Amino acid sequence: MKEFVVTPWEVKGKVDYEKLVRNFGIELLDERILAQLKKHTGELHYFLERKIFFAHKYFDLILKEFEKGNKFYLYTGRAPAGPVHLGHLVPWIFAKWLQDKFNSILIFQIPDEEKFFFKDDLSLEDTKKWAYENILDIIAIGFDPKKTKIFLDTEYAGHLYKYACMVAKKVTLSTTKALFGFKDSNNLGEIFYTCMQSVPAFLPTIWEKKPTNCLIPCAVDQDVHFRLTRDIAPKLGFPKPATILCKFLPSLTQGGKMSTSVENTAIFTTDTPEKVRTKIIKYAFSGGRKTVKEHRKKGGIPEIDVSYQYLTFFLEDTKKLKQIYEDYKSGKMLTGELKEITIEVLNKFLQEHQKRRERAKEKIEEFMLRD
Amino acid sequence: MKEFVVTPWEVKGKVDYEKLVRNFGIELLDERILAQLKKHTGELHYFLERKIFFAHKYFDLILKEFEKGNKFYLYTGRAPAGPVHLGHLVPWIFAKWLQDKFNSILIFQIPDEEKFFFKDDLSLEDTKKWAYENILDIIAIGFDPKKTKIFLDTEYAGHLYKYACMVAKKVTLSTTKALFGFKDSNNLGEIFYTCMQSVPAFLPTIWEKKPTNCLIPCAVDQDVHFRLTRDIAPKLGFPKPATILCKFLPSLTQGGKMSTSVENTAIFTTDTPEKVRTKIIKYAFSGGRKTVKEHRKKGGIPEIDVSYQYLTFFLEDTKKLKQIYEDYKSGKMLTGELKEITIEVLNKFLQEHQKRRERAKEKIEEFMLRD
Repeated sequence: MKEFVVTPWEVKGKVDYEKLVRNFGIELLDERILAQLKKHTGELHYFLERKIFFAHKYFDLILKEFEKGNKFYLYTGRAPAGPVHLGHLVPWIFAKWLQDKFNSILIFQIPDEEKFFFKDDLSLEDTKKWAYENILDIIAIGFDPKKTKIFLDTEYAGHLYKYACMVAKKVTLSTTKALFGFKDSNNLGEIFYTCMQSVPAFLPTIWEKKPTNCLIPCAVDQDVHFRLTRDIAPKLGFPKPATILCKFLPSLTQGGKMSTSVENTAIFTTDTPEKVRTKIIKYAFSGGRKTVKEHRKKGGIPEIDVSYQYLTFFLEDTKKLKQIYEDYKSGKMLTGELKEITIEVLNKFLQEHQKRRERAKEKIEEFMLRD
Repeated sequence: MKEFVVTPWEVKGKVDYEKLVRNFGIELLDERILAQLKKHTGELHYFLERKIFFAHKYFDLILKEFEKGNKFYLYTGRAPAGPVHLGHLVPWIFAKWLQDKFNSILIFQIPDEEKFFFKDDLSLEDTKKWAYENILDIIAIGFDPKKTKIFLDTEYAGHLYKYACMVAKKVTLSTTKALFGFKDSNNLGEIFYTCMQSVPAFLPTIWEKKPTNCLIPCAVDQDVHFRLTRDIAPKLGFPKPATILCKFLPSLTQGGKMSTSVENTAIFTTDTPEKVRTKIIKYAFSGGRKTVKEHRKKGGIPEIDVSYQYLTFFLEDTKKLKQIYEDYKSGKMLTGELKEITIEVLNKFLQEHQKRRERAKEKIEEFMLRD
């Protein structure tokens, strides 16, 4: 068994998601809960069918409460430190689906201080610049401006800081060291930051002036923050937030997750079709065999093929995906062909995204909360 | 040698101020610097003559810069958790004197989260209530509303948080543990708070958009926060703040400092004349002898007599104070007489203060900064 690491700041090695479920104290999204969800949504997003969103905590309670007439808010976020890549979009696409299906208000936190604390060479001006770049990608997802509130921590601190203090009083240094692995060499910002990430989970109750549920769609590495939030919530009189958690979009070169900080491992939302082509052709780790002859005979391994993984995230047509899987596995489809399909799917997706991203420039103010 | 403790949260035992000067790396206010100050002020406040304000860091540089035409801001604060007592007023009275003499803008921070972090039974509603009570005492000191900016941390966090983050990034947990004695059992608020206390020292430069000096008149226990601020300042491109530091007004029962949290050790600004009388008569630790006969023979000990100490803080007339010292020391003046004088001086002071405090209720908005 290879070792792997999953923290909000680092994903390393081949992630064993079953082990994560055990270690994080979360639950798998099983058939029972998916059936319960489908009662309300009529259909299941392919992220659910394909187990891309694979785990949760208290999502069953959110649905139970919803059935009693108690609505819930959605909350997700983006720590800006560079351009948005395809991996970032996954929870946002799913959040939009949930917003549409449940008519939910979405709180979108942009913690522009988080990466600033963790990266020496990053200034708050840098992260703010990236925040407003990233907001274009967020708006491009198609969220309802009347039901979506986006804010930067440093611009909305007048509202957030007070509640972060309430969280901070309830968390000891020991707890945060145990949860996040902090050492005495960490800075005070790194240590305090989790308090700010807890606050939006309480805003539904604060805004509605009555206990109001919050569901957080995010990648599984973020769950640790919300484990802390769930510990604190009852002490402050807030409902515990629920999470619904997705796997990581693999990096081009496989292993860990797609990451902005490692060159040539990510496809950015602003990449040109040519750039996407080059990245897939040159870098996308292949599950194919060494020679065409061997490939035809033994077949490819879609499970480790990055192009194929990308199709599971971005090719909506499940029948077509199945056909590709079988053709690649049988050896009928070569890696070159699989890559061409992936390039086409991603570029089609990005072409639409980039159009909406361009139009988003006029819409920013409709979405923003500021002090 | 008795042990003593001086931290921002605890003052215990008989304070050895000379030892503090060595331990804190601060300087005594010597004749040279007082003469330099007098060149600009024409006179010395009796707090300086009597060594109540006794130490400083970089005050000499502040004066040097002032002589070059570079003005400075003043900054002080009050962490609200209860009523204001006479001890709290000492740095404020001195800050007003400095404001008048140097025509300085005063930044007055009310960190309404600080005591909240340190006291289990205190809510942010409690500290906010006390904040606005305490602001009446601050305004009653007579600060110029055009040159005095008061804010609560939770109400002004929209402006402060960003800069607190810049400080936080530069301070490791190790540093803050060494400076403040924090343990892993401390909460995240206690640990982060010092970052918020640093920020007002940088506001002069931020507001003026050029390097602008800051002088902090405060009690000596606060210097540790500003030692941290001075370490950080150059890394963020801000001038190091200077401090000018006072001794503690003793508690009625002597030892440590006047404290709100210990019953019958403090005289509050809202105490009635009768209450002041009772407290001084019943509780003020006396430097007198056991019998009148012995007192007449050996004389009293003004150095340990709390009533006499209060006169050094609140009786402006230095000639009269000297006479009282001599009469008490020689045995000519009995403790009862000394206490009567003290009661009269304090009640006269409080009568005026309470009138101004009442009028302050109409003036709050002239002073406040909010997001």
